[in-house]
Amino acid sequence: MQEKVNLAERLASFDEAFKPKIVGELNDYKLVVVKARGEFVWHSHPDTDDFFLVLSGRLTIQLRDREVELGPGELFVVPRGVEHCPRADEEAEVLLIEPLGTPNTGDAGGAMTAAEERI
Amino acid sequence: MQEKVNLAERLASFDEAFKPKIVGELNDYKLVVVKARGEFVWHSHPDTDDFFLVLSGRLTIQLRDREVELGPGELFVVPRGVEHCPRADEEAEVLLIEPLGTPNTGDAGGAMTAAEERI
Repeated sequence: MQEKVNLAERLASFDEAFKPKIVGELNDYKLVVVKARGEFVWHSHPDTDDFFLVLSGRLTIQLRDREVELGPGELFVVPRGVEHCPRADEEAEVLLIEPLGTPNTGDAGGAMTAAEERI
Repeated sequence: MQEKVNLAERLASFDEAFKPKIVGELNDYKLVVVKARGEFVWHSHPDTDDFFLVLSGRLTIQLRDREVELGPGELFVVPRGVEHCPRADEEAEVLLIEPLGTPNTGDAGGAMTAAEERI
């Protein structure tokens, strides 16, 4: 059985931006923490929605037609297939939930694609 | 498209204990906020894990062989089929994530079973 997860402690254990770390699982979903600094990459996930919950800092989810600004305790679900690009002008700490195997860069690929890593 | 969800604002909109409120969806999962006060009911979910993230207060997840104590920013996933009984000696505010259609009382049923309600 998985143990409890203290999100702040897990986030304190690394410093890299946009390197998602799996901290747990819910059925076939991964529970992921990530630090966002700067702009990620435009992408979409054709087969899944994408869950963002800001734990600290501020995260802007850029959509093609608007921006969604999230602070601590605010969540947003990007629907499957919708292009988005997260941006954090200062650092944001975020909980992501997606199906296991979902690439962080979705359909875009490229240099920011990260392997699934557990901490 | 769903809008962003400010969890504290949603939780401030009701006061009943153990009445889960759906605030969003992630694929076929429901994103639920609940206030816990006192002891819930022993139950298990034979077909799904059960995600708990404490937002405020303290929640004890009683298992048959131990207790898991959660404070703000701490999460725990109860595996499918594992009996558990949440208890909050003072009020706890919690984010739950489960597949849509999952009854809050799992296989136990009874008076604390709540309809799926959106706010």
